[in-house]
Amino acid sequence: MGRLIGGDPSLLRRINAAVVLRELRGAREPLTLSDLARSTGLSRPTVEGIVEGLVDAGLAAESAGAVGDTRRQGRPARRYRFRAEAGHLLGVEVGPHRVSAVLSDLAGRRLGTADRAASEHTGAEERLELVGETTGELLDRSEVARSTLRAVGVGTPGIVRDDGSVRLCTALPGWTGLPLGERLRRRFRCPVLVENDANSAVVAERWQGVAAGCDDVVMVLAGLSPGAGSLIGGRLHRGFGGAAGEIGALHLLGREAFPERLLSTTGEPLHPLDEAAVAEVFALARAGDDLAGKAMERFIQRLVHDVAALVLALDPELVVVGGWAAGLDGVLGPLREELARYCLRPPRVALSMLGDAAVATGALRLALDHVEEQLFRVEGR
Amino acid sequence: MGRLIGGDPSLLRRINAAVVLRELRGAREPLTLSDLARSTGLSRPTVEGIVEGLVDAGLAAESAGAVGDTRRQGRPARRYRFRAEAGHLLGVEVGPHRVSAVLSDLAGRRLGTADRAASEHTGAEERLELVGETTGELLDRSEVARSTLRAVGVGTPGIVRDDGSVRLCTALPGWTGLPLGERLRRRFRCPVLVENDANSAVVAERWQGVAAGCDDVVMVLAGLSPGAGSLIGGRLHRGFGGAAGEIGALHLLGREAFPERLLSTTGEPLHPLDEAAVAEVFALARAGDDLAGKAMERFIQRLVHDVAALVLALDPELVVVGGWAAGLDGVLGPLREELARYCLRPPRVALSMLGDAAVATGALRLALDHVEEQLFRVEGR
Repeated sequence: MGRLIGGDPSLLRRINAAVVLRELRGAREPLTLSDLARSTGLSRPTVEGIVEGLVDAGLAAESAGAVGDTRRQGRPARRYRFRAEAGHLLGVEVGPHRVSAVLSDLAGRRLGTADRAASEHTGAEERLELVGETTGELLDRSEVARSTLRAVGVGTPGIVRDDGSVRLCTALPGWTGLPLGERLRRRFRCPVLVENDANSAVVAERWQGVAAGCDDVVMVLAGLSPGAGSLIGGRLHRGFGGAAGEIGALHLLGREAFPERLLSTTGEPLHPLDEAAVAEVFALARAGDDLAGKAMERFIQRLVHDVAALVLALDPELVVVGGWAAGLDGVLGPLREELARYCLRPPRVALSMLGDAAVATGALRLALDHVEEQLFRVEGR
Repeated sequence: MGRLIGGDPSLLRRINAAVVLRELRGAREPLTLSDLARSTGLSRPTVEGIVEGLVDAGLAAESAGAVGDTRRQGRPARRYRFRAEAGHLLGVEVGPHRVSAVLSDLAGRRLGTADRAASEHTGAEERLELVGETTGELLDRSEVARSTLRAVGVGTPGIVRDDGSVRLCTALPGWTGLPLGERLRRRFRCPVLVENDANSAVVAERWQGVAAGCDDVVMVLAGLSPGAGSLIGGRLHRGFGGAAGEIGALHLLGREAFPERLLSTTGEPLHPLDEAAVAEVFALARAGDDLAGKAMERFIQRLVHDVAALVLALDPELVVVGGWAAGLDGVLGPLREELARYCLRPPRVALSMLGDAAVATGALRLALDHVEEQLFRVEGR
């Protein structure tokens, strides 16, 4: 059902090739041409021609090991598998305090990770260099040639334009206005997908984390400058100008203190983005320090406020809390209580499962989506 | 392009009939069979058969007045038009203080309106009676038979389930749990679409108001219990449980006063839902009363807070302010200032164009959508 009418034989060939390739990729074990003809409804000669083409393109290979009953006839039928190793993808997080990267094959299997520390003062060029070093090291260590990269996904703070340039970013010096996608495309010589970090994180939690199976999800990356990413009907909600979920200013609306003040135990505000100081406050609080405990309470209260505002606006099925807060004991209790109090229909609330890896993992998923769209997309299906 | 392959001739007939009907409805003047054959690409005999069927069904009629050159041949070609009068639709607002209704034909042309006052204490049965009285009067006055109703749209405060029952409504006594859609379906004997009032209002502003041409819109119905409706990519965003935009509790998050308190000039809170008292405060403020002016300032500040939270979460292209605030002089100025201050990408802000009529008009549009879906929908187009 739903195939296109039309007289374009090359389109039809492409569609059929995508169908066969998808079958090969989805199969648990290598398939014979007969298997493929049966499951796709295509004729055996058509399947044979397509598989030859896929083998030539390096996307399919004859399986080395024979599977199943090989003795039924003199010679076993040839079996084919998807060559996930035919291409590779990178997911990269560019954050205020580190650059991290994850490498996978075309099946999304993770081949390795790497990261480098940065500081909130690291300039744009230096930060781009760190991206090059981190990914270069990862490729070398994994013995993967840069030329096999099919796509790179990048998660970054700030508002990102469709072309991958940074519209506005207050967290990274020199980042606003940077043609990030273009710069990295030149480096990697393949498609580069740039996405807001919280948006990447919510994609990751749905792929491999706590939001699996959920289509309506809000994820909050808690920090001194918190951000949120939302899935609506299973799709990223970026907003009209890519600024959806940029909730850093919610704190200010109530005319109350900034998080730097809320978390301070000295009366002096913490330095913005000084996560080490924050970690210290959290550690002190856990150790029973009274002032630090009170500071943490104020911070959690603020987080609850942010999350509640998002929930009232969007009514998601699930709220995922990540960023610093993923490491906070006892953030879920107050959050659930307050949401039950203020929301007419309170959502489920869960901590991030992927933690530190969420942004890079989501960026990898976006790169994979892009490649799968090219390889497997069949119009009308 | 995009027609379905398939062996179902009745489906094909239905598709072709929808195509012809849509052409007739969209035409500025009556069309000949040749006109229709040309614009639809169908054969003339096919068009003729379809038009006969549409005439039998009452959806098309031969046009009385001859149009264009009638002397070219002995007899002018017959011309046909869409019979918008073949069916009627109602849009109904059920609010705390009134029930209002608007009547249209199948082309969405407004034939009349009616309303009845209610109070916030009016019980559910009595309020349903008011719906019957208001719409009965409107139909009688417009000389439209109830049997010609094709669909009724209803906008109501609260969270509405897909089946048209009220999941939760704090504004109308006895409304929570009411099978509103079913009760009205029995009364009107046609499909009844029930929708949250703010959701209806944003649909209306896009149809005939200030949001025409905008796909990403947040509309705030300001009141003692404010609500919001959002369009994302041109579609209503209802949320996972239908509670998106139920921002009544945003006020509470900052631990600040309720609107009843914010608007009070006596130190005693206003009665919840007492809009007369609110109108008086607004009038006093406009007359230069100092206390009332301060009360209004507090109220506007709160409204700005609510809107900013929605904007940060959703990043719409346009914010429409309706409800009471649509009558507030000077609400737009502070709103724009604050949004520019807090939002990384501030949206456009406008007052509702439809004012009091927004909810009923949006409900009418939803009813019209339903009927058009049935009459004109062609799969794959």
